[in-house]
Amino acid sequence: MKKRKVAILGATGLVGQRFVKLLEGHPWFEVSALTGSARSVGQSYYDCCKWHLPGRIPKWAGTMSVQPSQSSLDAEIIFSALPSDIASTLELELAADGYHVFSNASSNRMAPDVPLLIPEVNSDHAELVRLQRNKRGWNGTIVTNCNCTATGVTLSLKPLYDDYGLKRVFLTSMQALSGAGHPGVSSLDAIDNIVPFIDGEEQKMQSEPLKMLGRFDGTQIVQADFGISAHCNRVPVSDGHMVCVTVELDRSASVEQIYTSFSSFCPDEIVSQLPSSPREFIRVFAEEDRPQPKLDRQTGDGMTTMVGRVLADSMLHVRYVVLSHNTIKGAAGGSLQNAELLLKKGLI
Amino acid sequence: MKKRKVAILGATGLVGQRFVKLLEGHPWFEVSALTGSARSVGQSYYDCCKWHLPGRIPKWAGTMSVQPSQSSLDAEIIFSALPSDIASTLELELAADGYHVFSNASSNRMAPDVPLLIPEVNSDHAELVRLQRNKRGWNGTIVTNCNCTATGVTLSLKPLYDDYGLKRVFLTSMQALSGAGHPGVSSLDAIDNIVPFIDGEEQKMQSEPLKMLGRFDGTQIVQADFGISAHCNRVPVSDGHMVCVTVELDRSASVEQIYTSFSSFCPDEIVSQLPSSPREFIRVFAEEDRPQPKLDRQTGDGMTTMVGRVLADSMLHVRYVVLSHNTIKGAAGGSLQNAELLLKKGLI
Amino acid sequence: MKKRKVAILGATGLVGQRFVKLLEGHPWFEVSALTGSARSVGQSYYDCCKWHLPGRIPKWAGTMSVQPSQSSLDAEIIFSALPSDIASTLELELAADGYHVFSNASSNRMAPDVPLLIPEVNSDHAELVRLQRNKRGWNGTIVTNCNCTATGVTLSLKPLYDDYGLKRVFLTSMQALSGAGHPGVSSLDAIDNIVPFIDGEEQKMQSEPLKMLGRFDGTQIVQADFGISAHCNRVPVSDGHMVCVTVELDRSASVEQIYTSFSSFCPDEIVSQLPSSPREFIRVFAEEDRPQPKLDRQTGDGMTTMVGRVLADSMLHVRYVVLSHNTIKGAAGGSLQNAELLLKKGLI
Amino acid sequence: MKKRKVAILGATGLVGQRFVKLLEGHPWFEVSALTGSARSVGQSYYDCCKWHLPGRIPKWAGTMSVQPSQSSLDAEIIFSALPSDIASTLELELAADGYHVFSNASSNRMAPDVPLLIPEVNSDHAELVRLQRNKRGWNGTIVTNCNCTATGVTLSLKPLYDDYGLKRVFLTSMQALSGAGHPGVSSLDAIDNIVPFIDGEEQKMQSEPLKMLGRFDGTQIVQADFGISAHCNRVPVSDGHMVCVTVELDRSASVEQIYTSFSSFCPDEIVSQLPSSPREFIRVFAEEDRPQPKLDRQTGDGMTTMVGRVLADSMLHVRYVVLSHNTIKGAAGGSLQNAELLLKKGLI
Repeated sequence: MKKRKVAILGATGLVGQRFVKLLEGHPWFEVSALTGSARSVGQSYYDCCKWHLPGRIPKWAGTMSVQPSQSSLDAEIIFSALPSDIASTLELELAADGYHVFSNASSNRMAPDVPLLIPEVNSDHAELVRLQRNKRGWNGTIVTNCNCTATGVTLSLKPLYDDYGLKRVFLTSMQALSGAGHPGVSSLDAIDNIVPFIDGEEQKMQSEPLKMLGRFDGTQIVQADFGISAHCNRVPVSDGHMVCVTVELDRSASVEQIYTSFSSFCPDEIVSQLPSSPREFIRVFAEEDRPQPKLDRQTGDGMTTMVGRVLADSMLHVRYVVLSHNTIKGAAGGSLQNAELLLKKGLI
Repeated sequence: MKKRKVAILGATGLVGQRFVKLLEGHPWFEVSALTGSARSVGQSYYDCCKWHLPGRIPKWAGTMSVQPSQSSLDAEIIFSALPSDIASTLELELAADGYHVFSNASSNRMAPDVPLLIPEVNSDHAELVRLQRNKRGWNGTIVTNCNCTATGVTLSLKPLYDDYGLKRVFLTSMQALSGAGHPGVSSLDAIDNIVPFIDGEEQKMQSEPLKMLGRFDGTQIVQADFGISAHCNRVPVSDGHMVCVTVELDRSASVEQIYTSFSSFCPDEIVSQLPSSPREFIRVFAEEDRPQPKLDRQTGDGMTTMVGRVLADSMLHVRYVVLSHNTIKGAAGGSLQNAELLLKKGLI
Repeated sequence: MKKRKVAILGATGLVGQRFVKLLEGHPWFEVSALTGSARSVGQSYYDCCKWHLPGRIPKWAGTMSVQPSQSSLDAEIIFSALPSDIASTLELELAADGYHVFSNASSNRMAPDVPLLIPEVNSDHAELVRLQRNKRGWNGTIVTNCNCTATGVTLSLKPLYDDYGLKRVFLTSMQALSGAGHPGVSSLDAIDNIVPFIDGEEQKMQSEPLKMLGRFDGTQIVQADFGISAHCNRVPVSDGHMVCVTVELDRSASVEQIYTSFSSFCPDEIVSQLPSSPREFIRVFAEEDRPQPKLDRQTGDGMTTMVGRVLADSMLHVRYVVLSHNTIKGAAGGSLQNAELLLKKGLI
Repeated sequence: MKKRKVAILGATGLVGQRFVKLLEGHPWFEVSALTGSARSVGQSYYDCCKWHLPGRIPKWAGTMSVQPSQSSLDAEIIFSALPSDIASTLELELAADGYHVFSNASSNRMAPDVPLLIPEVNSDHAELVRLQRNKRGWNGTIVTNCNCTATGVTLSLKPLYDDYGLKRVFLTSMQALSGAGHPGVSSLDAIDNIVPFIDGEEQKMQSEPLKMLGRFDGTQIVQADFGISAHCNRVPVSDGHMVCVTVELDRSASVEQIYTSFSSFCPDEIVSQLPSSPREFIRVFAEEDRPQPKLDRQTGDGMTTMVGRVLADSMLHVRYVVLSHNTIKGAAGGSLQNAELLLKKGLI
């Protein structure tokens, strides 16, 4: 199979760098363009990118010349790590120009004809792009992934929703610093501290899972009908979002049943065939003090969702914690997986 | 007024050190004995105490000779920072010998005739010591303070319980490292990490507030009747326990009403007269990103309870965060305040 | 004595906030103006200042309207926390307009007619302002304090220089995050990390102490003649710069003598009379593992210099560590003390 | 080649766990025994080992039954991660019983007939084991690796010593928390803090490199003859020891020459053939702010030594920083490499 040409938009930022790293040696994609802000355009990626990840800039990326984030990119597929304000219109323009855009920005997530996608959760929503093209009159595509904290939560709710239905979900997140990008959170606000506020985050946590767990009836997404309440906090952890979850089910179930729902979770067959999918979709920990970000975030190269402390709740049905790597599964890795899904399904 | 002689049990530990610091220049108490483990007995406090607090060991304490934790202490009042396993029987023996024991251990907290006391919350429970003496046939006293995470939570629930009643409370704690004492949590488990488990903590959080918010009918405590669900986490913060709280009230109330309940909260008049009571019992923050442990934990010298992000919840009535200094208000400072209350009430 | 009116330039930044806090209730000064960048001008300090210090904005400051950083300030004395690029010309213009400027910027530090001042080290250099006025033909003043890492080092070298002379000094700093201001260092570069580079810092460390330990002969500063080699590192500590120092003296001395030089250090009598001077100028620790930033940085309200681990070196004469609070003694507090010195000496 | 049976002594500790992880799939060795303290003996490694490394306990290790640390182990080669007090006599007994012991303890390092080995530095010292056997009358072996902070320093000094000779070396270390094992440093002493003292460390840093850079003349090690002065500090970094180094050479050299000495460093051919040797022995960074522990410690799977900031010193010839992974290259990985060296040389 000939590799598809892909461009990374906003390649010098933290998520952009993750894209560069994850696309190194990718079996289906080859990077043909890196874009950056005016300050970087025309420079080599080596010269303009302050690399924040372990290891060094891959040579093929370092020697590429950074282009402006606009049409005329020599690529079919676009991975966008642009900030929302720029992304909101530019990504639509690119899709209108025929590019297949996989976006990390929040701006288009809730549009009715835009798939908000986690392959393990709602791979069938991918089909929505046909309606999108029809409705918008373009040949391109825009597919988004969700907020990086919603990723792990929604994936962990999926087996519960399928097996027992959901009534109410109470969440409290403890989110990693990398979720705010680089430089992001000042070290003086992070060291020995918690910030109990992340702008817009609680709203996203309360709405995005409902769309993703919604049913695509062939013409539209019918959102899932349950309640979510979310507290979001920033804690001094570099990578890996932890969320404490308390769940009221539709149909009662024992802790053992729920544990089994997690541990036996298996998404659509097609999802297992994607190169970026982990071998283990959900790892359930029996240890009473796991998962922990430092020890577990790299599980499945950052693509596995980790669940632990699955216990009967004193009031509702069940409680657990979920951990997910926010810049891999929750951002660049998830986007890649989305593009792989659409390619595998013949939708791009 | 002649100062009362007090002994500090377990004076070399983290909470013991807080007692030493807080009793420096206390208007009603004077320290006449410090106790420690076999390793320390007979040494000067200077020689055996590895001091973990800012500043230096006060000279009066440093030069005292450490005694064993047992009867024959030259003191009337005993502040105990002993670990629960030792405390469980020893504190009872001391009370039987006529000492007035103020304990930080969990072992006797839930006994029906032992006051579990936060002056701002249930100062009337102090009277329970009369029944205790009667029933146990001793002249001494045992009074306990609650788990250091329960302190701030219960204090913040008090005005809501009084004004609107409570039905269900969902809690997620992010607890400071000092809650585990010194050495306590290994730095390798703390740096860049969260541990989603603290042994026994969730059970305490789900039971202790119900006793403290219970009604003392002259013969017994009738526990409060509402549900609590708690997730407890250890986060890399040195001091100050943060808790995210979501509340279902008995009687509906607007966010404005609830905000006013917090900000106008005033405990029994007698509580304001205690030397260790803060001038401000609850500080309510209007800023969207406060309280924060690093900036706010020292409010009121660590004795004020801080509430912020008071917002309408998407499902229940209200949500907020509460912060309290765990080794001051939640331990040594709270114990001191308890002793002051009993003294002021003429109960010791 | 009527209080002098003072303005704080760059009042919304981290050092500006320290000035606000330290000037609360100052016996000699009263704040009459706060300045900020274009973004803040015209707003109340409450509205435009994101407060990063424990406690709240003092009310008198919060209600002041922020002015632009320029002449026409209703004040005699100016405390400048401006960044160097803005400070370099503006501070000179203000001095030319007759203001007495106390600067934290590096731009004018090494000018021959500008005192680079630590009262404990070179209070006699203050007289240089007479020459400055003469030479520059202005009635104003510009006095600078040194780099925040040089402060503790130079103060600790002072008794050694006086008592034994210095030949060579090897330094390695471990500097706090607040030295870079707010937002300053990204949390992702700080957590679980060391950055072995701070732009321009090593050069400052190798030159500024030589000027401060130089001799003012009535017409000029004759710089001290010894060598300094400095490595500068950023470490994940919020406040308090630690420096490891190894010293070759001019005249040999025993560790005991050197310890005594530190512990008996006493600056000019006049320095002890300044309101911002600490009671203890140098605290020497006999404990083998002190000073430590977390435990000791607040000593003397952040104005004391702390020395520890005074030991014979395996090659040179002596080695020790020194700790100093970088935003108090090393910045705002030091500036205040400088202004107090000039006032006390009748130079302003 | 048939794999050699190896035992890991002290397998449940932090360094023991590193051994388990590094021996997973090792081409020359197979683990036949794990030992632990009385508390663990008889239990499965799964049951008694609190695993502190990312990922999970390998299954082959988890199911092994933990044995006491004593003779009668079914193994030829022993990797010892025992604490020094136990190691000092036990390791000698095991060698006397014919085992080939590779020790991480400090107790036997400086014995004249015990190789203190870093393959890149002094692979020829391995031959010393022949004299050792002769002198001690045993068939076993004891080989030690050096203090984990000395590893990177000595390796970085090796090319300078060979090319220009050394006169004086000034060191200041900033050491990771894992150097103290688990639980090791209390989190309360680590967060937002520096501890400027590590018991015994400075002495080791000042002596061990001299033995390793010494010349083996066939009958004894003639120690290198230059001076070392070391300050050792504990900083809040999980893994990776950083050291600032300032060097006076015997024969003057330009920074360019020294940079080349580092970057072209190549140990004995045999060392490149060891399975645990990294492909890159020294990585030299041209970037002004590297190496950094968080970004670089995993270079070469933790076996590469990283050098950066190679600059002319203001007083001596050259200065640089060196970073080395303390529990891999500086402990378990280094020990493995030592055993591989002796095996390859036919000495065991």
